[in-house]
Amino acid sequence: MDITTLFKLSSGLYIICAKDEDKKAQSGFAGCVVNTVLQATAKPVTISVCINKDNYTNACIKKTKAFTASIISEKIKESIIGDFGFHSSKDKDKFSGNPYAKSPSGIPYIKEGVTGYIQCKVIEFIDNYTHTIFIGEVEEAQNISGEPPMTYEYYHKVIKGKAPKNASTYVEDSPSQSAAGGTKGYKCGMCGYEHPGTKEEFEKLPADYTCPMCGASKNLFEPI
Amino acid sequence: MDITTLFKLSSGLYIICAKDEDKKAQSGFAGCVVNTVLQATAKPVTISVCINKDNYTNACIKKTKAFTASIISEKIKESIIGDFGFHSSKDKDKFSGNPYAKSPSGIPYIKEGVTGYIQCKVIEFIDNYTHTIFIGEVEEAQNISGEPPMTYEYYHKVIKGKAPKNASTYVEDSPSQSAAGGTKGYKCGMCGYEHPGTKEEFEKLPADYTCPMCGASKNLFEPI
Repeated sequence: MDITTLFKLSSGLYIICAKDEDKKAQSGFAGCVVNTVLQATAKPVTISVCINKDNYTNACIKKTKAFTASIISEKIKESIIGDFGFHSSKDKDKFSGNPYAKSPSGIPYIKEGVTGYIQCKVIEFIDNYTHTIFIGEVEEAQNISGEPPMTYEYYHKVIKGKAPKNASTYVEDSPSQSAAGGTKGYKCGMCGYEHPGTKEEFEKLPADYTCPMCGASKNLFEPI
Repeated sequence: MDITTLFKLSSGLYIICAKDEDKKAQSGFAGCVVNTVLQATAKPVTISVCINKDNYTNACIKKTKAFTASIISEKIKESIIGDFGFHSSKDKDKFSGNPYAKSPSGIPYIKEGVTGYIQCKVIEFIDNYTHTIFIGEVEEAQNISGEPPMTYEYYHKVIKGKAPKNASTYVEDSPSQSAAGGTKGYKCGMCGYEHPGTKEEFEKLPADYTCPMCGASKNLFEPI
């Protein structure tokens, strides 16, 4: 099997949010980034979304049977993807510093850097190894901007982002890649963000520099 | 609910093939076009695909518990999408005129105009209104070309294709659109293919002209 064949499956990028009834998240809400939303039926309108069981948002959706999906656009602030994609809602309040509003059911959705949002009630969920596939009946859907939706390909090619460990599409870095220690520059070891400057320019940055994408500290960057 | 919000969900385009043990299809194989394939897990590698129950391919997969997904590229011959997307495998032998090969399990896959193919055994399927969501464990995956994968957006914008009635994303034409009878030219009433010429140029075509996308006869074209 050639795993690179799977890299050609096209998808978008989404922030899934849910209420946290157990209040383990400071804000009372949980959220995470996925690339696994699809329209499943037209009448009634349902969508499916696949979420890792290790994501706290998964547990919240199972408990509350409802979620929103915000459709990430190419104009989103990279730090929003970093906050929602590379941290746990239990450890970080993802909502205090980011622009959100609430759907008719009171579930948060991201309101900037998105094309729109969808509110769903869960009608079924299926256990599938490391992930759960939720099927949601769409109760509300609204456009927010005319910005182009961000595809997963754009995220990889233009933003140079990588998949977090919980993603359906996660691939471990090959040792040769990590160990090579090139001279091109530096990339974040947490989220894959590539610093745009040279190796020397990166090294001159202050010690308290943090990754603009995920907030990782400077010492977590790796030479590429 | 604004249904156009759902139009921003990004996806690719795929031809799903299966063996037809009941031999209702002349070739002994069935196949259809979908835009609903996603990677669901990384370890083991599984994908999900959502297929309308009215598609004969759906019944064949339920019976044989196996399928292939060919990843359509931007270079595919439009008539292949037409054959697989706008006809039933029971009425038309989709394989005799189209380029295919067989996977290790003997299931056909399309071998031209695709980026590669994936062979799966079905480990679960879920009933969801008009559609079935199949979860397949990937047994084989091979690249075929370096052509860019065709996104659903490209299909709509560049090829001017539309969703067949069985698609998850099907939207009925509004009467005002169909009844307008504009002067721009003609489009196929079956698959949405827009003839590139003017109204006059289309009308001058011979009576036995057929749609290059789906094979519909000239009298099924509508003014736009």
